[in-house]
Amino acid sequence: MKSSLKDIENAKKRITPYINETPILTSSLLNTWLGHEIFFKAECFQKIGAFKARGACNTLAWLLERGERPDHIVANSSGNHSQAVAYAASQFKIPATIFMPNYSSQVKISATQSYGAKVVLCESRDIADEKVREAAEQDGAYWIPPYNHEQVVCGQGTAVYEALTDLQDIDAVFAPCGGGGLLSGSLIASRGLSPSTKVIGVEPLNANDAAESLRSGTIQHLNEVPDTLADGAMTMAVGNVTFEYLKQLDEFYEIEEDYLIYWTQWLTHLLKCRIEPTCAMPMEAIRRWLRTQKTKQRVLMVISGGNIDQQTTNKIWERNCLETTPSLFE
Amino acid sequence: MKSSLKDIENAKKRITPYINETPILTSSLLNTWLGHEIFFKAECFQKIGAFKARGACNTLAWLLERGERPDHIVANSSGNHSQAVAYAASQFKIPATIFMPNYSSQVKISATQSYGAKVVLCESRDIADEKVREAAEQDGAYWIPPYNHEQVVCGQGTAVYEALTDLQDIDAVFAPCGGGGLLSGSLIASRGLSPSTKVIGVEPLNANDAAESLRSGTIQHLNEVPDTLADGAMTMAVGNVTFEYLKQLDEFYEIEEDYLIYWTQWLTHLLKCRIEPTCAMPMEAIRRWLRTQKTKQRVLMVISGGNIDQQTTNKIWERNCLETTPSLFE
Repeated sequence: MKSSLKDIENAKKRITPYINETPILTSSLLNTWLGHEIFFKAECFQKIGAFKARGACNTLAWLLERGERPDHIVANSSGNHSQAVAYAASQFKIPATIFMPNYSSQVKISATQSYGAKVVLCESRDIADEKVREAAEQDGAYWIPPYNHEQVVCGQGTAVYEALTDLQDIDAVFAPCGGGGLLSGSLIASRGLSPSTKVIGVEPLNANDAAESLRSGTIQHLNEVPDTLADGAMTMAVGNVTFEYLKQLDEFYEIEEDYLIYWTQWLTHLLKCRIEPTCAMPMEAIRRWLRTQKTKQRVLMVISGGNIDQQTTNKIWERNCLETTPSLFE
Repeated sequence: MKSSLKDIENAKKRITPYINETPILTSSLLNTWLGHEIFFKAECFQKIGAFKARGACNTLAWLLERGERPDHIVANSSGNHSQAVAYAASQFKIPATIFMPNYSSQVKISATQSYGAKVVLCESRDIADEKVREAAEQDGAYWIPPYNHEQVVCGQGTAVYEALTDLQDIDAVFAPCGGGGLLSGSLIASRGLSPSTKVIGVEPLNANDAAESLRSGTIQHLNEVPDTLADGAMTMAVGNVTFEYLKQLDEFYEIEEDYLIYWTQWLTHLLKCRIEPTCAMPMEAIRRWLRTQKTKQRVLMVISGGNIDQQTTNKIWERNCLETTPSLFE
């Protein structure tokens, strides 16, 4: 692996002044119902409401440490990465411009602007991608990508690093897979701190480019924008940096949409957190994995974020899943 | 006042082994937008998901301290109090029977049973009230009421006690009013720890029996079950114990339903917590109160709980309030 535990430790030191050490939550009811112990690292309480603040802050702090202070930060995203870069740039007092597709939710646009970034709304994601590429070529500009960058990966890995420093004897770590940044960083942290702990990735079945890539051995691209509630896992393909890490995962699960809705409702109810469908998804993988285990397991799951707009909230709560109590067996 | 700071301190000592010391949350975006500092005591992270665990545990621990261990606990409630009593009884290994109307949400019935209590479903709230009265007359039975009891009041007061011990120079404390237990306890804690801090109550305009009682000087009863999303504030009348405390409040606000929805969406979004409409309600009172203030204020609000069923969640998220950023002025 290109990055190691040492790089995650360095990232943790760099970003400590700028990020929250998020709490680890448990539900005694859920543990009773499933007969195992499940710990949730609640990155919904991270700055900007998602783990992405870690990678953006680490990348900027790393540049400054090397004496390479950019004059101007640029990024492209419709989601949490836009807020993360805006937040990080504001912490280091560097101007930032974020290129966002004009269909981005108003809530995320407002938050990005509130952190002091200039938002340029573009007619499509492709145009945003093109504009950021042009902007990045200007003198003094630095483009922080959403996942395909060693320092972004190491920043994201600090979440699992914190959790495995606090918790002993964790049997498995589960995290969702979009571009693979969080999962790659989680793998590096886990292998370094606790080599026998399994690291397991989870993706929506409707957006399973990473699973297809792992099966074929080469990076596969989705052909069209996928139909999934897990907007954090809609990335069209993983990157060459993250794919090298993803190949070393112990297992990988693909989850149907109905289960995303079921667990978003239940984890919201039990943990009293705002939880994105992307982040609730690994819970179904945990349930399936626990069914194959013969002894009581201690499992860590990363709740990667809590930014949901009103339309998605409505889709999640259309029908009532809270009448069916979670159980290991159906 | 019949109870004093000393009683709250005793309650705090008694219940410490059984309850969570809940976190205090802030939103830097909200503070920037409103120009004041607002602190949220997050009782949604309390045992059973609401502050009610405090009062039930204190009442039982107080009985035991006096050598009056009941053989059997009874209670009547459709809401958080049923779970609180079931939880408290389980902690002290005393059998409990809870009389619940059969329209109570399945989620609350299941949780009450999961804490080990026997649930008796009744055809109406009146029948549940009658049955608990009968059950309480049996030898060795003890009835824990939802609010009209000095030890329940003192237990609930430990939430604001914890917050005002952690935070200095709070100008005002806001809490919702149902039966008045939380608000009475908050008043005792606040007057004892910080006499100059204002204590302000908040009620839905559609269920304003407490406001009417305070205006008339005698306890007023609602004529019919009120139409409000704030199910925690639907109590038909305050009690004689709580009314004596409520008379000493500094101010009292009555809030329209639209604002409950607006602030439930926004506080959920900003704080990433599951927040009952009852608990979001005081935020509108805070906004109105802040408009009358000439200097920067530090305000404490109790987020009293986070138990919401699917039907209520749908009502909250029907329309999109997140497009209108909070502001002191409309």
